[in-house]
Amino acid sequence: MSFTDATPAAIDQAVQHAWQAFLVYRKTTWPQRAQLLYRIAEVLEPHEAALVGLAMEETHLPESRLRNEFARTLFQLRQYAHAVETGIWTTFRINTASAESAPQPDVRKTYVPLGPVAVFGASNFPFAFSTAGGDTASALAAGCTVIVKAHPAHPRLSTEVADCIHQAIQQCQLPDGVFQHIYGASPAVSEMLVKHPLIKAVGFTGSYTAGKALFDIARQRKEPIPVFAEMGSVNPVFLLPEKLAQDATGIADMLAASITLSAGQFCTKPGLIFGIAGDALQQFTTQLAEKLSHTQGQLMLHEGIASAYREKIHSATRRQCTEPVVALSSLSQTLEAKPVLSTTSASQFMAHPALQEEVFGPYALVVACEHMEQMLQVVGQLEGQLTCTLMATEQDLLQHRHLIDALTLIAGRIIFNGVPTGVRVCTAMHHGGPFPATTDSRFTSVGADAIQRFVRPICFQHFPDRFLPPELQNANPWQWWRMVDDRLSQSRIE
Amino acid sequence: MSFTDATPAAIDQAVQHAWQAFLVYRKTTWPQRAQLLYRIAEVLEPHEAALVGLAMEETHLPESRLRNEFARTLFQLRQYAHAVETGIWTTFRINTASAESAPQPDVRKTYVPLGPVAVFGASNFPFAFSTAGGDTASALAAGCTVIVKAHPAHPRLSTEVADCIHQAIQQCQLPDGVFQHIYGASPAVSEMLVKHPLIKAVGFTGSYTAGKALFDIARQRKEPIPVFAEMGSVNPVFLLPEKLAQDATGIADMLAASITLSAGQFCTKPGLIFGIAGDALQQFTTQLAEKLSHTQGQLMLHEGIASAYREKIHSATRRQCTEPVVALSSLSQTLEAKPVLSTTSASQFMAHPALQEEVFGPYALVVACEHMEQMLQVVGQLEGQLTCTLMATEQDLLQHRHLIDALTLIAGRIIFNGVPTGVRVCTAMHHGGPFPATTDSRFTSVGADAIQRFVRPICFQHFPDRFLPPELQNANPWQWWRMVDDRLSQSRIE
Repeated sequence: MSFTDATPAAIDQAVQHAWQAFLVYRKTTWPQRAQLLYRIAEVLEPHEAALVGLAMEETHLPESRLRNEFARTLFQLRQYAHAVETGIWTTFRINTASAESAPQPDVRKTYVPLGPVAVFGASNFPFAFSTAGGDTASALAAGCTVIVKAHPAHPRLSTEVADCIHQAIQQCQLPDGVFQHIYGASPAVSEMLVKHPLIKAVGFTGSYTAGKALFDIARQRKEPIPVFAEMGSVNPVFLLPEKLAQDATGIADMLAASITLSAGQFCTKPGLIFGIAGDALQQFTTQLAEKLSHTQGQLMLHEGIASAYREKIHSATRRQCTEPVVALSSLSQTLEAKPVLSTTSASQFMAHPALQEEVFGPYALVVACEHMEQMLQVVGQLEGQLTCTLMATEQDLLQHRHLIDALTLIAGRIIFNGVPTGVRVCTAMHHGGPFPATTDSRFTSVGADAIQRFVRPICFQHFPDRFLPPELQNANPWQWWRMVDDRLSQSRIE
Repeated sequence: MSFTDATPAAIDQAVQHAWQAFLVYRKTTWPQRAQLLYRIAEVLEPHEAALVGLAMEETHLPESRLRNEFARTLFQLRQYAHAVETGIWTTFRINTASAESAPQPDVRKTYVPLGPVAVFGASNFPFAFSTAGGDTASALAAGCTVIVKAHPAHPRLSTEVADCIHQAIQQCQLPDGVFQHIYGASPAVSEMLVKHPLIKAVGFTGSYTAGKALFDIARQRKEPIPVFAEMGSVNPVFLLPEKLAQDATGIADMLAASITLSAGQFCTKPGLIFGIAGDALQQFTTQLAEKLSHTQGQLMLHEGIASAYREKIHSATRRQCTEPVVALSSLSQTLEAKPVLSTTSASQFMAHPALQEEVFGPYALVVACEHMEQMLQVVGQLEGQLTCTLMATEQDLLQHRHLIDALTLIAGRIIFNGVPTGVRVCTAMHHGGPFPATTDSRFTSVGADAIQRFVRPICFQHFPDRFLPPELQNANPWQWWRMVDDRLSQSRIE
């Protein structure tokens, strides 16, 4: 199979096609959109073995991980389908006519899709954040049409998954332009796609450089459009004193597994670990180093990521301000990544902002603070993060409540005695965070609330009932919960 | 009183002060924020006569209108207070721990305020979209601190209102930096404010030029921030054939009143009226012209707006492509605005995009379409709008259902047999619309959902109950409706 970059004419044609399909697809009801998502999951499911095999070849990720990710992708499609089928992803609001001080008209609010969405998948999640991943699922659930630019690191897998989506669309008798799949190893393809006036939103998961570039292109358009770019994070972990004294080994175990999971190629990999200097931290660091140095090397996703890892590790470990604990030995294969651990002091950390940069791969930096006040001071200098993790006893939390508080300024998710890797797909999840973790901290890219990214509200005032969308009609035909005159109700309006 | 532009040092000081206050105010509970809003309304209320008098002097708006707007402002403060006191402005989501295929952690999502917000009020709403208006109310409800840049068209009123807000803040024993008020007639003040790294969001109501400029500044920051700019609209009205034949007079009455209300100085003023060429449209136009020409001239807000109106009217009526029906006679006072009505054909309209531009003041353009297909074609060329209005019988809607549908592509609100002016303050309202009506079509600036602009989600994973914010605790201390394991519930979690 050969994959050639889409030409400008082909991109324009795809977007025009997406727009025409959008004019049809946007008229589907929420339950009809749910049917499409369920169908995509059904078409994909029997291809698990072949797709996982292809993913193994293209990404070098282990089979068990890919099988889990495949299952998660189907689960996600079905969960978002369920969310739009039951109306739980948002609250539909109705205020009936009233005569408070003056007569007030009947006003009812629902949501309409934004338009064709350009989706840029991630190399590290060939299923769950790629062709049939969260952005595609939530955009389709919203009523948008989708153009996926295949990730150049897994074009064959992407093509196969796209074929399954096409089949599902055909089976649902929807226009084939509802989903399209193009190739483009060159940034020029992405740029043309995001600049096209009929593209109305962008979903992206990947590096800061690429995500911020798309964001900048989108804001310079005549009509600016939203870009939801999830650009990674260093996911700081805070070891609180009592907990560390009680369970240095347990924490070291958990973190070693989390740092090396899938060769550390997760946007939620814990990359910074803060503790109070002393014996307990020393013991923890030694144990973590021990576990990391005994971890098998794993192949990284592709040469670009592997060489970036090597370069970042070299510059990170050559720095005067850090000290390697587990250093990089010579590599038997160019794609192989070995875990690396360094340490530094909080004052060095604060003096060298470069130490905050994400190192994509199985690397972590342990930062020794002099005391809790210094740890709090460090938090004040951290950039926006997808996650922060507290390893703490309840007593620790009681004594350092201001630390939780400080973390709410920078984190999208705060984890207590767990690891940031492994993002539960559920409505209460928030996978996002302040810039530079994402370009829009107000939205999640995991969980059915992700659908909210691709709609805008629309209000119908004083409309005859039968011309309203079903979700706003008096009869409440789907028996959804709605906010009627500021009270939640599942009833019809009499 | 003299009003001098804030110096760079004063702006920096104000923002630093807002940040320090934010670090305290963000820790208040939702009900505590409600108490502040209630208190602001209470402090303002007894000053109605004095404040309305001042507003009359500074804005030339009539007393009855200003009394209504004052009442609306208090109502709005209390409504947003009620919304955060009862938790109805959003849905708090909880997914308890489970063991679906693998063990899943307990995950709970609430919302944290973005940070200090810069608010730029509107000259045409000295109360409701100004110092204590919707942006201030929703930002304070969200837990943000606020810096209002006083509108240079009503600095005395703004100062008096700001004093009331300061009193309320003192009475609630909150830091005085929760709300600050600065002056700045020069755009440099706005620019410095929006560029300041500790400003985290912007609320704006006004012109496209000013709103888009703030948007561009905000996007170029190292850390881009959201700008919610409501930049106006031409609010097209569509006269459908059966309705027009039945009630040309009634429609002309409604529209004449709406066009001239407060000298046409509303972002929801109907500026374009589309009908099918023929006797009925002719009759309607004649009646509308008659009513408009008998409307008393009204003073506009300030010289800048009045001269912009005169200039736009002159260029609009001098165009070959339109024909004046009610022309501008000589003006007795420079601030006085007389209604003007022009007509054109749909083909001329489509050939001259400038005819889509908003003319702020009592001006409207009647566009005669050859047939309904042409009307639909025109809709395809319209930019994003705050509102679109359908004057129609149900029979008209049945026959032209595709027109409703086309309007959902461009409008934030669609009104049936009513006028777009008069925006009901309620949770189902959407006051927003696709660009260029606003810079972010996904959010409203009217109704308690406006609070959603100034928060971001945050997720607590596997947290001990007592360290969660009250709205997420098992006990559900405020008996709010929450989405627990994807089901709405008012109960505690056992």
